[in-house]
Amino acid sequence: MTSTPPVGLADVRDAAARIDGIANRTPVLRSRTLDDRVGAAVFLKCENFQRVGAFKFRGAYNAVSRLSPEQLAKGIAAYSSGNHAQAVALAARELGSSAVILMPEDTPDSKRAAAVGYGAEIVTYDRYTGDRVALGEALARDRGLALIPPYEHPHVIAGQGTAALELLEEVGDLEALVVPVGGGGLMAGSATAAKGLLPRIRMIGVEPETGDDTRRSLAAGHRVSIPVPRTIADGQAAEIPGALTFSVNQRLVDEIALVDDDEIRAAMRWAFERLKIVIEPSGATALAALLAGRLDPVPARIGLIVSGGNIDARRFAELCGA
Amino acid sequence: MTSTPPVGLADVRDAAARIDGIANRTPVLRSRTLDDRVGAAVFLKCENFQRVGAFKFRGAYNAVSRLSPEQLAKGIAAYSSGNHAQAVALAARELGSSAVILMPEDTPDSKRAAAVGYGAEIVTYDRYTGDRVALGEALARDRGLALIPPYEHPHVIAGQGTAALELLEEVGDLEALVVPVGGGGLMAGSATAAKGLLPRIRMIGVEPETGDDTRRSLAAGHRVSIPVPRTIADGQAAEIPGALTFSVNQRLVDEIALVDDDEIRAAMRWAFERLKIVIEPSGATALAALLAGRLDPVPARIGLIVSGGNIDARRFAELCGA
Repeated sequence: MTSTPPVGLADVRDAAARIDGIANRTPVLRSRTLDDRVGAAVFLKCENFQRVGAFKFRGAYNAVSRLSPEQLAKGIAAYSSGNHAQAVALAARELGSSAVILMPEDTPDSKRAAAVGYGAEIVTYDRYTGDRVALGEALARDRGLALIPPYEHPHVIAGQGTAALELLEEVGDLEALVVPVGGGGLMAGSATAAKGLLPRIRMIGVEPETGDDTRRSLAAGHRVSIPVPRTIADGQAAEIPGALTFSVNQRLVDEIALVDDDEIRAAMRWAFERLKIVIEPSGATALAALLAGRLDPVPARIGLIVSGGNIDARRFAELCGA
Repeated sequence: MTSTPPVGLADVRDAAARIDGIANRTPVLRSRTLDDRVGAAVFLKCENFQRVGAFKFRGAYNAVSRLSPEQLAKGIAAYSSGNHAQAVALAARELGSSAVILMPEDTPDSKRAAAVGYGAEIVTYDRYTGDRVALGEALARDRGLALIPPYEHPHVIAGQGTAALELLEEVGDLEALVVPVGGGGLMAGSATAAKGLLPRIRMIGVEPETGDDTRRSLAAGHRVSIPVPRTIADGQAAEIPGALTFSVNQRLVDEIALVDDDEIRAAMRWAFERLKIVIEPSGATALAALLAGRLDPVPARIGLIVSGGNIDARRFAELCGA
């Protein structure tokens, strides 16, 4: 069976045109120290410098911007306790719409406040009894809102692919691109962009050791579910790959590397002390895989996506201050 | 009495040509959040991304590069427990020379290791009984080394001015430039560059409240000595301005703002959480002055020098993690 891919390079280019001047064109950092340490030329695409502090704004804005004026007038809904919540809230505000975000009752105040700061309304649910997808769909239906899912949507995937597109436009040929994998939206978009431009590039995903649902699913040839992962990389604590994202990643991802929490913490600390940048745990897994020797052999010219930097100073101190 | 300034714009331009391709041309960061908060267009020249993690490499390299081949063969000396030590060590290595650094016995291992990592030899002294200037001069004389002081040298001052030169080349007209002041070398170089290009720009220095030797000296019209300042901004704990740097700053600095340790910590935390960058205490004082309302009125288009980012994760956690 062959089928048309749900997202192509042209969709990523379209998304890039939509976010131009609204999302940040984030910097690509180099480090002599890093290159010397790993014996390769490393290019870090720094989405911690993206608006809302993570790549999520790219996909959210692309998706929201394609809604009709009528729908924008009615508003947007999303379910997320993390960066997607802020991304949808900001995208809605930028496009003159409004957002309602469904969050677990025990979401930290700082995350709630961030979404409220972008003008969103927060609706809470009990994470132990509620199904966020069903609740989100009901909320959207009841209020006439457009639901923007965190990764299972072609416009979201295409938007997330713009970071890799920018990276490759800036640095040219790469042997491999290393991308954190949670629900799989960033990887699906990145792989679509990168293999569209460079068919021979190796796409390497990175998951937390305890959250290797995509690695298992790729090995099995179908989506495999795992118990709720215990990891500091909260943005990558998926139990099962998305159906849409997996259909893309199954076709385009070459391998998955795993990292443990200590390796993530070491990468965050190293980025802090050597690169002088702040990376959240989920954002640091690609760098962690490189620094911990989980990529073997190390490709000679390698891109890494640093996917986000949303961690407060107190939490960083807990994880990396000892 | 008029006298020829020890450093002019042409010297800063000369230094810029010397460091081109060797020092990093550091990024100028913007932040919508920052601009909205203070009601101004703010441009952050990020020397925390400079080689060795601070602006000091600019001046050290410029000074070392002007030594004769014979002197480079004999070697360099410097006295410093901080960023100047690493800067001289790296500059010496880059130019095929060698460096001997005089450091207090109680210098933290990490700082000693950093200089050793760049190939320097370390000589220690007792900070309670030894005079580092006299010891440094004796060391240089005994071993035939060229002593590169941390700020009292025209080539060092000219080199430090290249950060402001790059900033103004990139962003054009600014109403004011805010610069941390310790010994005064960064300010003297910055003011030389900035007033050379834009005679009407306001040069605003920032000192720790307890280390206001330059503010007092400017008010008195001559160099004033203060007790050893107690401040977390260790790079700005000067007891008296340099004679050479003060002669420049007296002519070119318009005002000095003061910040306390809590304001510095708040700025470091804010930069961490909002800008996703790491700034050491001395590097954060210009940003602290802006965020704490110590600049009043706030100039509409304002440049800030973020002068360094050398702080380890543990120390950051102590200062900002609570």
